[in-house]
Amino acid sequence: MSMMMPAIHEGFARPGYPLNAWYAVAWDAELKRALLSRTVCNRKLVMFRRTDGTAAVLDDACWHRLLPLSMGRLDGDTLTCAYHGLKYDSAGRCSFMPSQETINPSAAVRAYPVVERHRFVWVWPGDPALADPALVPDLHWNHDPAWAGDGGTIHGKCDWRLIVDNLMDLTHETYVHSSSIGNEAVAEAPFEITHGKTGVTVTRWMIDIEPPPFWRAQLAWINPDANRPDARVDRWQIIHFTPPGAVAIDVGVAPTGTGAPQGDRSQGVSMWVINAMTPETDRTCHYFWANVRDYAITEQRVTTDIRTAITGVFGEDERVVEAQQKAIDDNPDKVFYNLNVDAGAVWARKLIDRMKQAEAAALPVAAE
Amino acid sequence: MSMMMPAIHEGFARPGYPLNAWYAVAWDAELKRALLSRTVCNRKLVMFRRTDGTAAVLDDACWHRLLPLSMGRLDGDTLTCAYHGLKYDSAGRCSFMPSQETINPSAAVRAYPVVERHRFVWVWPGDPALADPALVPDLHWNHDPAWAGDGGTIHGKCDWRLIVDNLMDLTHETYVHSSSIGNEAVAEAPFEITHGKTGVTVTRWMIDIEPPPFWRAQLAWINPDANRPDARVDRWQIIHFTPPGAVAIDVGVAPTGTGAPQGDRSQGVSMWVINAMTPETDRTCHYFWANVRDYAITEQRVTTDIRTAITGVFGEDERVVEAQQKAIDDNPDKVFYNLNVDAGAVWARKLIDRMKQAEAAALPVAAE
Amino acid sequence: MSMMMPAIHEGFARPGYPLNAWYAVAWDAELKRALLSRTVCNRKLVMFRRTDGTAAVLDDACWHRLLPLSMGRLDGDTLTCAYHGLKYDSAGRCSFMPSQETINPSAAVRAYPVVERHRFVWVWPGDPALADPALVPDLHWNHDPAWAGDGGTIHGKCDWRLIVDNLMDLTHETYVHSSSIGNEAVAEAPFEITHGKTGVTVTRWMIDIEPPPFWRAQLAWINPDANRPDARVDRWQIIHFTPPGAVAIDVGVAPTGTGAPQGDRSQGVSMWVINAMTPETDRTCHYFWANVRDYAITEQRVTTDIRTAITGVFGEDERVVEAQQKAIDDNPDKVFYNLNVDAGAVWARKLIDRMKQAEAAALPVAAE
Repeated sequence: MSMMMPAIHEGFARPGYPLNAWYAVAWDAELKRALLSRTVCNRKLVMFRRTDGTAAVLDDACWHRLLPLSMGRLDGDTLTCAYHGLKYDSAGRCSFMPSQETINPSAAVRAYPVVERHRFVWVWPGDPALADPALVPDLHWNHDPAWAGDGGTIHGKCDWRLIVDNLMDLTHETYVHSSSIGNEAVAEAPFEITHGKTGVTVTRWMIDIEPPPFWRAQLAWINPDANRPDARVDRWQIIHFTPPGAVAIDVGVAPTGTGAPQGDRSQGVSMWVINAMTPETDRTCHYFWANVRDYAITEQRVTTDIRTAITGVFGEDERVVEAQQKAIDDNPDKVFYNLNVDAGAVWARKLIDRMKQAEAAALPVAAE
Repeated sequence: MSMMMPAIHEGFARPGYPLNAWYAVAWDAELKRALLSRTVCNRKLVMFRRTDGTAAVLDDACWHRLLPLSMGRLDGDTLTCAYHGLKYDSAGRCSFMPSQETINPSAAVRAYPVVERHRFVWVWPGDPALADPALVPDLHWNHDPAWAGDGGTIHGKCDWRLIVDNLMDLTHETYVHSSSIGNEAVAEAPFEITHGKTGVTVTRWMIDIEPPPFWRAQLAWINPDANRPDARVDRWQIIHFTPPGAVAIDVGVAPTGTGAPQGDRSQGVSMWVINAMTPETDRTCHYFWANVRDYAITEQRVTTDIRTAITGVFGEDERVVEAQQKAIDDNPDKVFYNLNVDAGAVWARKLIDRMKQAEAAALPVAAE
Repeated sequence: MSMMMPAIHEGFARPGYPLNAWYAVAWDAELKRALLSRTVCNRKLVMFRRTDGTAAVLDDACWHRLLPLSMGRLDGDTLTCAYHGLKYDSAGRCSFMPSQETINPSAAVRAYPVVERHRFVWVWPGDPALADPALVPDLHWNHDPAWAGDGGTIHGKCDWRLIVDNLMDLTHETYVHSSSIGNEAVAEAPFEITHGKTGVTVTRWMIDIEPPPFWRAQLAWINPDANRPDARVDRWQIIHFTPPGAVAIDVGVAPTGTGAPQGDRSQGVSMWVINAMTPETDRTCHYFWANVRDYAITEQRVTTDIRTAITGVFGEDERVVEAQQKAIDDNPDKVFYNLNVDAGAVWARKLIDRMKQAEAAALPVAAE
């Protein structure tokens, strides 16, 4: 890795997020024929499914006197405010006002572009004209019959970028997860970074190593030899970041000598760790995660085991990143310094910063 | 109603209240020969009854080192500070300092003009020279043997004006109180507004309607025919606002054709819903309410029934206005828009704003 | 006392503290071979004992990403960060970074000068070059075999100077502690003030008085005549303040006529009330107190009795000073006025203010 690490990461503590982006705001299964209130990028939103099953997201404050519409009622595709009975259609237009026949034509609450994809509901808080569904991050493994698994949601008391940092450098596994998945091998293995306008990739291969206990057990589902004491594997961790908040991690092992580093994973087992982080406020976030695998896909017991294990591991991370957020707030005069292992996180934050700068430069959006 | 509704209510979210006004700060029965601490218009006050029974209100902070005097002791008409034993008379003048014989002549805490009237204790937080008892809002029904009833106190987590808004437009009954007193007839009935320098009145008559269950039962106390299935009534809601925080609502029903709209209520039943709202802080208030009636005045059971019902109804309102306060704080970029039904509330706020502007213009007070 | 009391204590409510000073941060027994997190002067610190038993105090935030080092591990004299495994020696220098062989030579966390003395651990938050151990306040009685006793810690929700005020004027005993040690005699007795650059002393003698019950019982340990109904004593309270936060109070009684006022205390009993107050934040403090005596020093029962009594008395003070802090915050427009009895507290605050002014004037420190 020839990249020079800047000594100080400028602006790390300044809250802020791009608005012209798709953000995961709910699991598909969370959204029902009912009103769900959720804060995204400091905006109070109300979400629901229309009668046709599609998702709708509106500002959660009545045009008239700001009462949260989520306190009201959903009938068909119509929301009724709980205070004075104003009604809105699912595009946010007011269709009824009490005691008057003429409706102010400007009476409306803001509706947001929504896409449902990869089992998540995605919202675009910025300029609707730019909301191209093709820009939703690729997390398709989460909704592919060739892959099986499960996930969860963490409402983290931290800036969402602290979770991006955490995922972009897995050497922390050695220290934070020493009692579970941590392993000296990860911190010792070299890694490579590639980065472009649309993403950052961190690739780490551990060639010809003794399989860690977790991976030995997974590989044994397709290859009984994995349990032999002298088994050797090649292990990979390939982290893909798509700004502003998606991290898909391709992990797995294959028996050494079967060609995995060259591209043939047919003798190995693969897993995707899927992560979508969304700012809730400047200091809190929604973190949707999933874990899917390409082996033993009909074994629900494996799904349960892995979900339980990951819930424990991510709980360790949550404790760390929330303490880090508190430390940032407690030490306003201190900055982040970077190590070589931070290269992936540093590039991820650069891409986020570029999105923010592009928005600041685009005056019509900034004036919105 | 020919009034044009302004599209946006300017300044609705700016906290603030006139100081040159009488504010209800306690029920008469709350004030005893003991020290009561209460915050009014962001001022910490200590209140008590003197030996002669009159009410006294002082700043609740010792001149010396600011300890709340309410932590101290009341002996006769003398307060003793719990820290160093300074004593004050009921006009706030210091009459004793420890370990010294000479008392600093400027040693005093501020005393406020107080009037006890209509079962409430009223304080004037502004210029004492302007504190004319004749300016106490007329809520005399609350202390008149011809009227019977009871009341309560709500310490609301909202700007007091949100409760004024709520009371000035009773169409919200249809939506907020749909499970109790709400009724489509209210939102559908026309209303008239009159306003002057000293108040706003909103008058709504519902002529020749089927009596709602609550009113049918009340009318039956004086007229058994009210229980007949074909009974018809005229119903009135006449809301009187006196700035900054008193709302007296004259409600009732009389059999249709007995002349109530023309002024003869002798065949009907009347009730006053009395409301006095006082800013505690910018975002909280004290709300004293009472309900008195001119029928069945010796039936304590009716008092209990109505108090219980109103406690439930006002609890529904409290939930709404507290959510509205939170929405105002959560949406600093949003404003209130007005409907035709808001005319009463809009005028009420105009009168409040005029009081504030008059104070800002009166320099000697502003410099105080 | 000829000193003129200024009418208003300027700047009393402005938070702030000198940094070039020794502050007690822990009892000796609190500091072990483990990581202890404590905030001092708004700085998050981590403290521990080295393998050689000496105390070390560092900034509690990893150089890399600010995680509190107190969440990490202590092995020998080395701290390991719980996030990425960076290691620090007890002087704060980084000795290990994950996945890289070269360590950034500037990688370090700040280490603070520490002295352990008089049973307390003292930290110097300011310019280390000025950290002269000779400047630790003299509280040697707390660690002297001729004196016996015990102490405790209060984490007070108030500016530390409110406790200094409280201790510099014991007339408050008459009012705050009326149910325990309070006594009219204290407020009535005259007192003398001396002050210099390094301290303030308030001296109060009560000559030929009936011994208060507490002191009668103490004196009886060495002189059975103390229990005689006609016993008379001379009682002293000599308060020594050393800025910014140490107050040592020399109290006791001796039979009248045995020469205590002239310096012969051989027939009396003496006690030191030792107090070290340290700003935690602008509105909270650590308060370390102890009480030691020169009689019945092998009677552990006396230690227990006195510790229990003082814990109760200081609880009464804590309630008052915390209410006072809240009153300061609630009344930003009000100031402290002073009585004659405040002379000691006024001089104590002047010495504290001079330390702050000296630091503000010393540019190299201010620029730090």
